[in-house]
Amino acid sequence: MKILDYFTIGNLSAVAWEAGKPLVIEEVEVAPPQAMEVRVKILFTSLCHTDVYFWEAKGQTPLFPRIFGHEAGGIVESVGSGVTDLKPGDHVLPVFTGECKDCAHCKSEESNMCDLLRINTDRGVMLNDGQSRFSINGKPIYHFVGTSTFSEYTVVHVGCLAKINPAAPLDKVCILSCGISTGLGAALNVAKPKQGSTVAVFGLGAVGLAACEGARIAGAKRIIGVDLNSNRFNEAKNFGVTDFVNPKDHNKPVQEVLAEMTDGGVDRSIECTGSVAAMISAFECVHDGWGVAVLVGVPNKDDAFKTHPMNLLNERTLKGTFFGNYKPRSDIPSVVEKYMNKELELEKFITHEVPFSEINKAFEYMLQGKSIRCIIRMEA
Amino acid sequence: MKILDYFTIGNLSAVAWEAGKPLVIEEVEVAPPQAMEVRVKILFTSLCHTDVYFWEAKGQTPLFPRIFGHEAGGIVESVGSGVTDLKPGDHVLPVFTGECKDCAHCKSEESNMCDLLRINTDRGVMLNDGQSRFSINGKPIYHFVGTSTFSEYTVVHVGCLAKINPAAPLDKVCILSCGISTGLGAALNVAKPKQGSTVAVFGLGAVGLAACEGARIAGAKRIIGVDLNSNRFNEAKNFGVTDFVNPKDHNKPVQEVLAEMTDGGVDRSIECTGSVAAMISAFECVHDGWGVAVLVGVPNKDDAFKTHPMNLLNERTLKGTFFGNYKPRSDIPSVVEKYMNKELELEKFITHEVPFSEINKAFEYMLQGKSIRCIIRMEA
Ligand SMILES: NC(=O)c1ccc[n+]([C@@H]2O[C@H](COP(=O)([O-])OP(=O)(O)OC[C@H]3O[C@@H](n4cnc5c(N)ncnc54)[C@H](O)[C@@H]3O)[C@@H](O)[C@H]2O)c1
Ligand SMILES: NC(=O)c1ccc[n+]([C@@H]2O[C@H](COP(=O)([O-])OP(=O)(O)OC[C@H]3O[C@@H](n4cnc5c(N)ncnc54)[C@H](O)[C@@H]3O)[C@@H](O)[C@H]2O)c1
Ligand SMILES: [Zn+2]
Ligand SMILES: [Zn+2]
Ligand SMILES: [Zn+2]
Ligand SMILES: [Zn+2]
Repeated sequence: MKILDYFTIGNLSAVAWEAGKPLVIEEVEVAPPQAMEVRVKILFTSLCHTDVYFWEAKGQTPLFPRIFGHEAGGIVESVGSGVTDLKPGDHVLPVFTGECKDCAHCKSEESNMCDLLRINTDRGVMLNDGQSRFSINGKPIYHFVGTSTFSEYTVVHVGCLAKINPAAPLDKVCILSCGISTGLGAALNVAKPKQGSTVAVFGLGAVGLAACEGARIAGAKRIIGVDLNSNRFNEAKNFGVTDFVNPKDHNKPVQEVLAEMTDGGVDRSIECTGSVAAMISAFECVHDGWGVAVLVGVPNKDDAFKTHPMNLLNERTLKGTFFGNYKPRSDIPSVVEKYMNKELELEKFITHEVPFSEINKAFEYMLQGKSIRCIIRMEA
Repeated sequence: MKILDYFTIGNLSAVAWEAGKPLVIEEVEVAPPQAMEVRVKILFTSLCHTDVYFWEAKGQTPLFPRIFGHEAGGIVESVGSGVTDLKPGDHVLPVFTGECKDCAHCKSEESNMCDLLRINTDRGVMLNDGQSRFSINGKPIYHFVGTSTFSEYTVVHVGCLAKINPAAPLDKVCILSCGISTGLGAALNVAKPKQGSTVAVFGLGAVGLAACEGARIAGAKRIIGVDLNSNRFNEAKNFGVTDFVNPKDHNKPVQEVLAEMTDGGVDRSIECTGSVAAMISAFECVHDGWGVAVLVGVPNKDDAFKTHPMNLLNERTLKGTFFGNYKPRSDIPSVVEKYMNKELELEKFITHEVPFSEINKAFEYMLQGKSIRCIIRMEA
């Protein structure tokens, strides 16, 4: 990394030039932060499925060249005008959704779906001027979900940065930027299982395992993991999962299997697959009278959730969550504290680690289903 | 009414001999209460749509001859063995669903769907011996939802009787047995609108108007009534409705009309129609981030509730309720107290009154859409 001039930083970024092609580490210029923006030095980043989906760009709008990455930990390098909450040296986690603190959602106690900074996967530029802060020889490289953390430096809106305890190890807490907080919050903030209750978690990827961890922290007695891939079951034991169900092993709907296992249904279920069939099963497997089902997985554009209304009238509740209902700036610092207090275990999510120069290996581990989270070290 | 012998009472009941044919007032013998049963002298009863649906027996299983009626107020005449909570002279409201106080639902704080006494519209007999307590010349006349209040005397399971304040006027509070409590509880116990919020109520029949009354009591600032029948709108003003929408007046989906009226959606919606189209609109019209939709209407057997899962992921909540989530014995006495305290207005629901001998007029008023509630006086 060399300083090109007073404002622009020359740095190394992993650029996705084309859908599905390996990222290329390039020298990229990172413009200074504008009003309400912050330039962050990334120390650790990790790979999430959403990066892979948009890199593959099979169902999604392709936008290239682009710098992916949205789970990370870093240190503030400089701040633009109007930024008062952060100063150089602060430790931060960038988040793909934001908190402006000013809109109806930010002012509501219940919502984290900020009108200004809500995730926008199609936008590749900054809000302030509609331009990218990344360029190679003056040609723009697009941003991804306002974070673009596969880069030594990145520019992020101040509303998308959680200021955290500087004592927290960034190589661990960086995974709280997205999937782990999503699953954890789905359990702790939305499903809210009671002490001693039974929780079903559909999908035992990183998000689902984090939901299991949340259910364990909340004191669930029985955590039933449901996945089409039985290989997931062994690992899931480390996350408090007590029973496993593979829908393929049964010739009746999995909601019926679960109802039989639990005397009428589970107290809570959390769907972390993105499959609409799993969403319906996750809803229909909760107990009448008090069951709550929480949807987390991102469905396809033309999916329809379908159920008989009597399933609702029998006093079941259906909810969805986005980023585990956490407000990035207000709430994520306290999730970091949960890790610092040893209430929350993060190490078990981290299965791999690579230097930045080998970032494409992180993609391979994920595509092969080998990793939960692979940490990418920016400094050699 | 004459006493036939020490145990059996000869009384007048309105018998439905055939689907859709006027009820006939007949001399009927009412057997004594068995274990856990109570014989109640009915003073006032009112007519609810559910009576009409099962009397018409168009979509429902026909079971005749039958004594309908499930909204009423009465006085305990005698009790069967094992009944300790009630004694002759107590004032009670019979309820179509019960509370055994012993099953998982009764023990749960959240559910009122008692495993033992949950509504069963197909059963025409008492649980204890599988027989009817009503007969004419030894031939049984079937019960309806365990209440059969279109009769001077009826026999009810103790779990389906709410013991209420003897000072409460039974000709008013009798309407709390079913529809009014259902709508009121849907608002107060399930939707729980905050002070100053906006609530949409779909369907302005008795249940919907009671939901409006609940929203008013909870302090909603704006109550938007939605009905296909614009005649409902004038009356609805007495129930706190501030805005009216007839979906037929618009050429876009009513959820879009409501979103435009409310800057993105209502805070709460309550569906009281039974139409699955209205259920879907009621869900999709709530604000993302915090909106809660509550379904009350009873759908058809083959209806499907269908929505895009993104509507859920954007942090909307969908719930259903049964009898407004009130536990009949534990909670209904306090609803009666709300009326006694003048917090809840009941008079405005009562549009008609007839003597028992003219009970068929109550059916006519309802079928013509003239009445909200018609009180039937048992004593001349
Ligand atoms: N709502 C949010 O804020 C948010 C944030 C991050 C991720 N997500 C979503 O959460 C979901 C899970 O993410 P992940 O990274 O853990 O994914 P993942 O692919 O690692 O795990 C998904 C798991 O679900 C299993 N699965 C698929 N279909 C299934 C079915 N019908 N029944 C049972 N199991 C099934 C798969 O075998 C897999 O193990 C994705 O849809 C992702 O887009 C949502
Ligand atoms: N869940 C329970 O415990 C419970 C108890 C009692 C009644 N109910 C149900 O509540 C519902 C309402 O009962 P009610 O007695 O008030 O009925 P009602 O027939 O008097 O009123 C229903 C109203 O809904 C309107 N409506 C019908 N379709 C509509 C649509 N698509 N959009 C807008 N408005 C529409 C009608 O014009 C009518 O005014 C019924 O389905 C009934 O079975 C449920
Ligand atoms: Zn905001
Ligand atoms: Zn992610
Ligand atoms: Zn019970
Ligand atoms: Zn009724």
